[in-house]
Amino acid sequence: MKVAVLMGSKSDLPVLEECTAVLRQFGIPFEMRILSAHRTPDEVAEFARSARENGFSVVIAGAGMSAHLAGVIAAHTTLPVIGVPIDSSSLNGMDALLSIAQMPPGVPVATMGIGKAGAKNAALFTAEILSISHPELFEKLALYREDMKKGVLEADESIKKL
Amino acid sequence: MKVAVLMGSKSDLPVLEECTAVLRQFGIPFEMRILSAHRTPDEVAEFARSARENGFSVVIAGAGMSAHLAGVIAAHTTLPVIGVPIDSSSLNGMDALLSIAQMPPGVPVATMGIGKAGAKNAALFTAEILSISHPELFEKLALYREDMKKGVLEADESIKKL
Amino acid sequence: MKVAVLMGSKSDLPVLEECTAVLRQFGIPFEMRILSAHRTPDEVAEFARSARENGFSVVIAGAGMSAHLAGVIAAHTTLPVIGVPIDSSSLNGMDALLSIAQMPPGVPVATMGIGKAGAKNAALFTAEILSISHPELFEKLALYREDMKKGVLEADESIKKL
Amino acid sequence: MKVAVLMGSKSDLPVLEECTAVLRQFGIPFEMRILSAHRTPDEVAEFARSARENGFSVVIAGAGMSAHLAGVIAAHTTLPVIGVPIDSSSLNGMDALLSIAQMPPGVPVATMGIGKAGAKNAALFTAEILSISHPELFEKLALYREDMKKGVLEADESIKKL
Amino acid sequence: MKVAVLMGSKSDLPVLEECTAVLRQFGIPFEMRILSAHRTPDEVAEFARSARENGFSVVIAGAGMSAHLAGVIAAHTTLPVIGVPIDSSSLNGMDALLSIAQMPPGVPVATMGIGKAGAKNAALFTAEILSISHPELFEKLALYREDMKKGVLEADESIKKL
Amino acid sequence: MKVAVLMGSKSDLPVLEECTAVLRQFGIPFEMRILSAHRTPDEVAEFARSARENGFSVVIAGAGMSAHLAGVIAAHTTLPVIGVPIDSSSLNGMDALLSIAQMPPGVPVATMGIGKAGAKNAALFTAEILSISHPELFEKLALYREDMKKGVLEADESIKKL
Amino acid sequence: MKVAVLMGSKSDLPVLEECTAVLRQFGIPFEMRILSAHRTPDEVAEFARSARENGFSVVIAGAGMSAHLAGVIAAHTTLPVIGVPIDSSSLNGMDALLSIAQMPPGVPVATMGIGKAGAKNAALFTAEILSISHPELFEKLALYREDMKKGVLEADESIKKL
Amino acid sequence: MKVAVLMGSKSDLPVLEECTAVLRQFGIPFEMRILSAHRTPDEVAEFARSARENGFSVVIAGAGMSAHLAGVIAAHTTLPVIGVPIDSSSLNGMDALLSIAQMPPGVPVATMGIGKAGAKNAALFTAEILSISHPELFEKLALYREDMKKGVLEADESIKKL
Repeated sequence: MKVAVLMGSKSDLPVLEECTAVLRQFGIPFEMRILSAHRTPDEVAEFARSARENGFSVVIAGAGMSAHLAGVIAAHTTLPVIGVPIDSSSLNGMDALLSIAQMPPGVPVATMGIGKAGAKNAALFTAEILSISHPELFEKLALYREDMKKGVLEADESIKKL
Repeated sequence: MKVAVLMGSKSDLPVLEECTAVLRQFGIPFEMRILSAHRTPDEVAEFARSARENGFSVVIAGAGMSAHLAGVIAAHTTLPVIGVPIDSSSLNGMDALLSIAQMPPGVPVATMGIGKAGAKNAALFTAEILSISHPELFEKLALYREDMKKGVLEADESIKKL
Repeated sequence: MKVAVLMGSKSDLPVLEECTAVLRQFGIPFEMRILSAHRTPDEVAEFARSARENGFSVVIAGAGMSAHLAGVIAAHTTLPVIGVPIDSSSLNGMDALLSIAQMPPGVPVATMGIGKAGAKNAALFTAEILSISHPELFEKLALYREDMKKGVLEADESIKKL
Repeated sequence: MKVAVLMGSKSDLPVLEECTAVLRQFGIPFEMRILSAHRTPDEVAEFARSARENGFSVVIAGAGMSAHLAGVIAAHTTLPVIGVPIDSSSLNGMDALLSIAQMPPGVPVATMGIGKAGAKNAALFTAEILSISHPELFEKLALYREDMKKGVLEADESIKKL
Repeated sequence: MKVAVLMGSKSDLPVLEECTAVLRQFGIPFEMRILSAHRTPDEVAEFARSARENGFSVVIAGAGMSAHLAGVIAAHTTLPVIGVPIDSSSLNGMDALLSIAQMPPGVPVATMGIGKAGAKNAALFTAEILSISHPELFEKLALYREDMKKGVLEADESIKKL
Repeated sequence: MKVAVLMGSKSDLPVLEECTAVLRQFGIPFEMRILSAHRTPDEVAEFARSARENGFSVVIAGAGMSAHLAGVIAAHTTLPVIGVPIDSSSLNGMDALLSIAQMPPGVPVATMGIGKAGAKNAALFTAEILSISHPELFEKLALYREDMKKGVLEADESIKKL
Repeated sequence: MKVAVLMGSKSDLPVLEECTAVLRQFGIPFEMRILSAHRTPDEVAEFARSARENGFSVVIAGAGMSAHLAGVIAAHTTLPVIGVPIDSSSLNGMDALLSIAQMPPGVPVATMGIGKAGAKNAALFTAEILSISHPELFEKLALYREDMKKGVLEADESIKKL
Repeated sequence: MKVAVLMGSKSDLPVLEECTAVLRQFGIPFEMRILSAHRTPDEVAEFARSARENGFSVVIAGAGMSAHLAGVIAAHTTLPVIGVPIDSSSLNGMDALLSIAQMPPGVPVATMGIGKAGAKNAALFTAEILSISHPELFEKLALYREDMKKGVLEADESIKKL
């Protein structure tokens, strides 16, 4: 159940570390790669074409601006590809969001929200996908939700006292 | 590997039939439901809470405008939830896209493109998810891609003659 | 005439304190709660379902990003629900504004402006609602307007001298 | 518990009839007026200033484009003012939505969604406001919700059979 | 040829000082006022109604957010009204731009660009209007343009040397 | 007090006829010209440079898409230039609005709303400008406003009867 | 000086015929191809990699929605690539415009306007590129401009008579 | 193969230095000019009209806000004109992007992305144009791509080790 976490540039790393932190927490093995749809297109294609046989189950790809990375990966594999739009231009990530979300019919990409929230959710969505065949992830997801809930309930208690 | 295809209103059916047609083509069993996050919130919660034990593996939810359906489902289950923004207000589906995509960290929804393209891709993305544990879907996905490719190549041949 | 002031996360507190400051000024009793549509959906539903019988007259809900909180509350109560979009993603609150404002027909949410201005106005709008049955609030509202007017007139005097 | 339903132009009538139909259904008395913030500003101010003493409890104002009507009404009264953005320019109602929603702090307007959905919700929100002091409206709102729910459940039954 | 420079709040002063600096440079007499369409609507109406007889030729009004000031002034006078959208919310002034520009047919407002550039241009446009009947302003405008041109040409010389 | 009504293409005529109809109604002499900032730049410059000496007082320029016409005219004259954004691309006139409104500091263009409403207002704003030196236009403007007001009041009467 | 005119789908043909008509008019040889960045990624890469040696000088690529075609082509060739955003989703081509224009640094795509205007300009821009080494195209471009100018002048004459 | 690098204001220099740095790296001679479409329109026209005979092959023009510079240059020359939208207003460069990209049919401008990424790509696109007739640039472009690729591969190696 190995996962690939791709980014178009090293400057995207702080965003995608939100993703890898959660994968680590769930014990999901992953490999991080910097692959650019425009600067290393052959490596991207090669990676995507062999991803399934190389043991990957899900590919997470974060990119900003035109943000073609997730779409190009998806063109070369039928593994689930999750796209994380990154806010790295003056347009606040709206360019990346539309570029990733508006895929043509036939080649899907699952789009998350812009930036760190989306990166974290990419990891959680991956865990959800893998939980279909890995029941232990289902438990971990339940615990994660429970923890989040506790966090909210505690904050709720603290604010009631204000 | 049963899939739920939810919509907030019967008027969303023509969009989501793009989705069910592909599920049928792939032999993926599905149930269609009309459930409204705002008009039948208890039914939505009840559905979502019991979805996993009721044998669903993936939930696809199409909605327009504020489009809370996918997010509300995701709040009650750790199954993968795929959201399809529907263009049913004057804002061309931009309202639904942002409402579905910009989920807060912790509760992911996989957003597809707006409208019929997104509905079709929701089915294909579901097949990709299920292909991790169902190798026969991997084959079907490969054939589907091959067919799409053939369609493009034939169109290419016909246009070269123009 | 008790009011509930809800927020999806403690980080929304600085925005909603603009709201509670005004409620306090008007002598309107309120309870603050942190409730998340996605992380504590059952608590949200439970809160909303019992809000009227628990003596609440109006519910104010601030949230950012997908901002489903107000809509989910509104799905479970027929009390007036006021939504405050919060600017907590890279999209400047436009995501939250559309997510709150574009409610489907049948389940209304009263949307305020984005951020602190909207939070303050949520309190004033609440006072306006309650003033229908509480004439003393009508007086307080008149005085508040008078004070605002004085503030503008004084600023006007000071600028005329420039 | 009389309600005013204002519009800036007779061409807005088809939108606001969604509103008056619901008011009628709830037995809430209303008066319709055409008042233009820009073409009849004195009449607007006069109306707003005397609205409370003339027995109005809530003012609903629909307008398109710059859509100042609701804001101008709100400047002259402390009655709850509900704004309905109307899609009457090439910008799909986004201009009216921002113009109504982004009120400065101090003078609130409750914004509904764009167009007919918003107009209907304006009536329902009015009923919710009035239900605080008119318990019979609370019952009617509960029935209305029940009817909506039934509609969804019936549609759900019919789609399950597909 | 007296000009009124209005703003909705003292916080708008830094923007409108771009305007008054140019008026001063052109020797155009002006009065600055703080008048709020929503907090002092009667003063706004009173000002606008008597502006022509009080010797004003042009009214410049800067405002942010819903930005109704210019439109409300225009509703009460047939003097030329120039609106300056101010970037004072999270939406970067897009709310104010649409709110000022999208006036309904019948009551015009001349919209300038957002912020300081627009404020400066409001003064220059005022000088252009007044130059029709005040030929000395025509000369001053020509000199101003000449100066701007010189500034560009000098910058051009300096950059050629780089 | 002659006015120039320019458009970038004959296809813009239906929009600008809203403008010329009002000019005719006010007895303001005008000349219509088709001049393209991009296809006839020399003619545009020549027209603008000699507009004042050719007896023009105001220039109205309607254009769509990149909509440089008004700005280019303004670069060559210190006459007041009024820009009318025209909705002639897929972007609903938003491209033309920003292109006309966001002029850099130093060279103002007075932007009207998008399309026919803006074209009509361009004529009325022209009348307002000219009314400073032509008192008879002031009277005509007052009558025009009076007529508009009557139209609203009559519509108001008719709707009260509904 | 052969040119490639690519499109992602046969449904884009009506837009790109605006392009090929101009190429034909200029006597620029071209080949039309249907190649999809997502459905035939290998063919796209293969085409792009060999485009220069296959005698192409310029590549024009039209696509809608996520519109990765031009960017993917540009990743595999250093020939000038011109992208034409096509309005084929509910978002009016804004998705395609941002997806094509916001290319990351290092791999340029020359973006034209959305739709038919952009397709025509892609052909003219190609002629401009080729005119650097083919002086006869310079003449043809001058004539084309002259013809456009004549068209505007004739329209100008006809409108002056109105 | 001389290139002109134009900007509307000296404040645009930091953006366009991304462009000139690349031109220098490729050994492409260039001249930098500050020319303003609105403040020095005659110099702009004069420059553009004589650009080809003055030995320029390509014109790069960066501008913000209304950003007419590239379009005005293109109106006066049939040389390839490349526009770089600059983020110099509150609208994040969206105004400049639309103003440059949405050129009417007949007069093309090649639009790059907003800001520094676009400025760099303008230089690279220029090199691509010139490489058609200057094979040594083709080699340099290949090396540049190779270097970029190496940079990504090295970053990839370093991240694999994390």
